[in-house]
Amino acid sequence: MSVCVEGGKPPFDEWTHSIRLRIEAALARLLPHEGTPPERLHRAMRYACLGGGKRIRPLLAFAAGEVSGAAPDRLEIVSCAVEMIHIYSLVHDDLPCMDDDALRHGRPACHIEFGEASALLVGDALQSLAFELLSHECLGPRRSEMLGLLARASGSLGMAGGQAIDLAAVGQDIRLEELERMHAFKTGALIRAAVLLGVFCGAPLDSEETALLERFVKSAGLLFQVVDDILDCTASTALLGKTAGKDAVANKPTYVSLIGLSEARAFAESLHSLAAGALAPFGGRGGRLREIVDFIVKREF
Amino acid sequence: MSVCVEGGKPPFDEWTHSIRLRIEAALARLLPHEGTPPERLHRAMRYACLGGGKRIRPLLAFAAGEVSGAAPDRLEIVSCAVEMIHIYSLVHDDLPCMDDDALRHGRPACHIEFGEASALLVGDALQSLAFELLSHECLGPRRSEMLGLLARASGSLGMAGGQAIDLAAVGQDIRLEELERMHAFKTGALIRAAVLLGVFCGAPLDSEETALLERFVKSAGLLFQVVDDILDCTASTALLGKTAGKDAVANKPTYVSLIGLSEARAFAESLHSLAAGALAPFGGRGGRLREIVDFIVKREF
Repeated sequence: MSVCVEGGKPPFDEWTHSIRLRIEAALARLLPHEGTPPERLHRAMRYACLGGGKRIRPLLAFAAGEVSGAAPDRLEIVSCAVEMIHIYSLVHDDLPCMDDDALRHGRPACHIEFGEASALLVGDALQSLAFELLSHECLGPRRSEMLGLLARASGSLGMAGGQAIDLAAVGQDIRLEELERMHAFKTGALIRAAVLLGVFCGAPLDSEETALLERFVKSAGLLFQVVDDILDCTASTALLGKTAGKDAVANKPTYVSLIGLSEARAFAESLHSLAAGALAPFGGRGGRLREIVDFIVKREF
Repeated sequence: MSVCVEGGKPPFDEWTHSIRLRIEAALARLLPHEGTPPERLHRAMRYACLGGGKRIRPLLAFAAGEVSGAAPDRLEIVSCAVEMIHIYSLVHDDLPCMDDDALRHGRPACHIEFGEASALLVGDALQSLAFELLSHECLGPRRSEMLGLLARASGSLGMAGGQAIDLAAVGQDIRLEELERMHAFKTGALIRAAVLLGVFCGAPLDSEETALLERFVKSAGLLFQVVDDILDCTASTALLGKTAGKDAVANKPTYVSLIGLSEARAFAESLHSLAAGALAPFGGRGGRLREIVDFIVKREF
């Protein structure tokens, strides 16, 4: 039996496990079946989506949903939409013309397993499916607003734009503020979308609470990236499930390469404090979001 | 001065010219400016979108809008959304891992001009932007329905799925009905979306009219493809603005390769009759759609 905390809430690791199972099941249900033509494409889409992953963005959406009292069935849909956008970006980023990585979640990357053309189409079709999910009636009257939010976070002024900046930065001598802008686009925008979509699934927040959440996502988004940079430098490929040390090999600017490992760790600590501070006024409603950033800053896998 | 027909309506070539100018201007306005970071990505997105093209899907949307009395400002937005989906698919299809084509609209393809990685991101970001457009409030209460329609038409059960079937069919001995299914996915789904999105911008149709339009899009969508196959075999690269004869070189099954040129022409004629028959009950409201299929079946460029 599990030990419960905070008025019956399951402990963090039990909660994350249950959300991950829920998301895995929802993705399996929402993706076209392997037997539906074109079978090979659908098999490849399922391979890319159901092959593991930390499901950080769904966890953030569900945690943010506790801030606004959101219904789990809505959270499940927006979580799957954000996760599909994230996965499509991984599939495309791993292609030879981009980061050229053969390993993802400890398995062959999608283009290694299915070929480049199929991987390209897997990413394209996952993006379409992500947006299709946001047309679901059960999301209520704010679903067009949700669509605008996720689309902007995914496009040239969000994730895809950040990837373009990243490509241009390889081998360049960039400054810290440029690195920060790149990450705000590349990973920050989608993390913000995950949190705000989760919140949008519940009751509207007032402007003060919205401003606090914006402060939270800004710090948390950057925190994830700084920790990723640290782990890319300190963890092993086996533990990461993706090729470790590839930033250095690719001569990519990272927080570690720009400010050094110990400064990067100190920066992560300060971002964690900022994120936690922005959550404090929410009290118990912000508890899960707080647990997520606590976990992120401590993770060493 | 132009000769006007049907109660003041401009003649077809004048109408198509005005819609094309309108769409070009709308795309130029809706795409991020070249000076907006990441500048290179935005320059590449504009290069891909503003470099010509027949704008068949916007023409279909505007023509379909006349069936339901749709407002032009709504038609402009859905037309740009469909056109961006179409353009993203061309940019990705031209990549070396797909059709590997260096020429598009008589100019270097996007990946030739900007590199493969940028072209990949151009397609990704255009897809996001297309869906973002459908979040626009001016589209009214049916915009979530529009989103679902366009997303399904774009994804693995539509355009991207058709591309996957196409890839698998290269060098294969496929039957006519398989070719038809491939085209229903690859080009038919997006043509259907263009027509229905145009109609959705106006007053709701009754179920009988909706069924007639579904019959129209089925025939018209296939007609476009059969004519494309004929032109790929009979027209020159200079006239097409893309590499001619590449289907035969790539050993791709086409209507011409499966049933021969004269049978393909007869098939196009019969599809044209079916499309025109489905429009007849709409009278003048279906006039522009009729002119489009009349034009398509006659075009020899």
